[in-house]
Amino acid sequence: MGFSIGVDLGGTNLRVAVVDDAGTLLEKLTTGTEVARGRDHVITEMCADIQQLVGKFRTAGTLYGIGIGMPGIIDLATGFLYNSPNLPGWDNYPVRDDIERRLGTRVILENDANAAALGEKWLGAGRDFDDICMFTLGTGVGGGIVLNGRIWHGMTGMAGELGHFTVEPEGAPCGCGNRGCLEQYASATAIVRMAREAAASGRAPEFERVAGGNAEFNSKVVYQLAIQGDAPARQIFQTMGRSLGIVMADMINALNLPMFIVGGGVVSAWEMFAPAVFEEVKKRSFVYRATAPGDTGRIEPGATLITRALLGSDAGLYGAARLPMIADEAVAHRHARQLKRA
Amino acid sequence: MGFSIGVDLGGTNLRVAVVDDAGTLLEKLTTGTEVARGRDHVITEMCADIQQLVGKFRTAGTLYGIGIGMPGIIDLATGFLYNSPNLPGWDNYPVRDDIERRLGTRVILENDANAAALGEKWLGAGRDFDDICMFTLGTGVGGGIVLNGRIWHGMTGMAGELGHFTVEPEGAPCGCGNRGCLEQYASATAIVRMAREAAASGRAPEFERVAGGNAEFNSKVVYQLAIQGDAPARQIFQTMGRSLGIVMADMINALNLPMFIVGGGVVSAWEMFAPAVFEEVKKRSFVYRATAPGDTGRIEPGATLITRALLGSDAGLYGAARLPMIADEAVAHRHARQLKRA
Repeated sequence: MGFSIGVDLGGTNLRVAVVDDAGTLLEKLTTGTEVARGRDHVITEMCADIQQLVGKFRTAGTLYGIGIGMPGIIDLATGFLYNSPNLPGWDNYPVRDDIERRLGTRVILENDANAAALGEKWLGAGRDFDDICMFTLGTGVGGGIVLNGRIWHGMTGMAGELGHFTVEPEGAPCGCGNRGCLEQYASATAIVRMAREAAASGRAPEFERVAGGNAEFNSKVVYQLAIQGDAPARQIFQTMGRSLGIVMADMINALNLPMFIVGGGVVSAWEMFAPAVFEEVKKRSFVYRATAPGDTGRIEPGATLITRALLGSDAGLYGAARLPMIADEAVAHRHARQLKRA
Repeated sequence: MGFSIGVDLGGTNLRVAVVDDAGTLLEKLTTGTEVARGRDHVITEMCADIQQLVGKFRTAGTLYGIGIGMPGIIDLATGFLYNSPNLPGWDNYPVRDDIERRLGTRVILENDANAAALGEKWLGAGRDFDDICMFTLGTGVGGGIVLNGRIWHGMTGMAGELGHFTVEPEGAPCGCGNRGCLEQYASATAIVRMAREAAASGRAPEFERVAGGNAEFNSKVVYQLAIQGDAPARQIFQTMGRSLGIVMADMINALNLPMFIVGGGVVSAWEMFAPAVFEEVKKRSFVYRATAPGDTGRIEPGATLITRALLGSDAGLYGAARLPMIADEAVAHRHARQLKRA
């Protein structure tokens, strides 16, 4: 047996797991990410968890390596982390070098949404396909594109930023500097913002009541109101689905892939926003209309499938563990490209 | 020496050329495409031109094969043509089989915008890159994506439809069934439509004067007014550049490619709309801002370049001729994928 250590280093939770090459999760450690105690503390904790699991499973098989998914943009060439609002103080830090020095071994870093896409491709909704596109709806909106079985990194590792497609050219300002990004309409943060806006407008009495007395007003509360039939709450999920549908239609037109997957925590509200996604995609993408699956209930060759993720919050953990298993190829590919660019 | 026959079968012009494997165009036949005389007539003319050139160059070297670029969507598996408004009566016709039967040899069909992207990648603005994205601004707006040196076809050959990205969710209706497509703001047709709308509004006296007395009112007239400083004409190119910039920012965020190329007839107005493209891309894509080239005047590794095409109206012809030269690989790849899907 061969196994990997996969790490999902989030702004809230730190999860470290042992996964074998058949895709079985053998053990998982979950702790809170103590972001407030600083970068050094978090890396120390993570390395301790990794070493604990490596030690425990050392005799069980061959260790492929260590893969770490984390929020933000990772420069593939340098292993620096950029633009990671959920890990304040980590920007422009040589994360990979630091971790490798502490562990005394090579590690592979990956953007968390890319890791989730790879996990779903390996063991989840995309397992029958070589080419998939995944949207991860959480605090923000991430994306991951897998082409020919491999994460499409682009030139510098920044590809897959689907959360920053423009949906409304003059829409809500986004932290990325743009206006009207998908992330401003389809993330948990966006759901709360839209609900607060509706409450402030005086047209959503339930929001006013709930938000007024509740410091913990969050997207789950909006979802609860929506399933109870509250019209302003339903309108928010309608906006969310429409926005996601616009970007999905764009991506279907651009890449004509067989599988589009929606994951992340917010996908638990799938039945509230999915109808609007399908409606929008049908209306906006003639490529989708030409390839929409029939009602046969089976996977048809040539059909474009849109579905929810299957691995839940473990998608990124499985994807991170998968990285070292397919790394030789990926590393050789990256080196070849860098040589070409140099 | 090896050579190919490349064909650019447009709604207006039919061009057939001999191109050798060093990229030299040895001879070109240009005639009008007599679309009104019907599909059979056009195919007969095209095959006669092809046979004439094959006969003339037979002793000069080895013929790789025949590549044909045409407007519309080509189903790679069947060789049928779909959705080709510029070739009325060709929809759902087995174009490839018909041509192969007449010529007695295999031919490769390709969407015209894909062929143009391949041409620019081979000999034009993209020649130093393996990964490019090209927008072709003409009567409509086409797109072509080249990844790892090959046209990205997607699952059924429909990839690269960048003209049908949504720019304005409630914008102008498009022939594809969507509203607010890029094609409605960045094509020659769109320029004329926007000018007519401005004339009808009474706020563009020059358009009223020129359009009123001129049945040939076209995008070139709007361009002439713009370079003379006419404000409504400049506004149209501003809208055009902004719309193209929105979609280009999306594609930079999605794929993080090193080279984005703008071609097609309308690119002759480049200096009128390019400033708005760059302005929009800088504002809307943090991936672009993180990778924008400096002022060194040379190609930097890791930089995202946006530039106009270099081959003019011959891009598609060169790309079509290139198809048979790289076909073995591409065909093997397609067969492998079909087997996998079956």
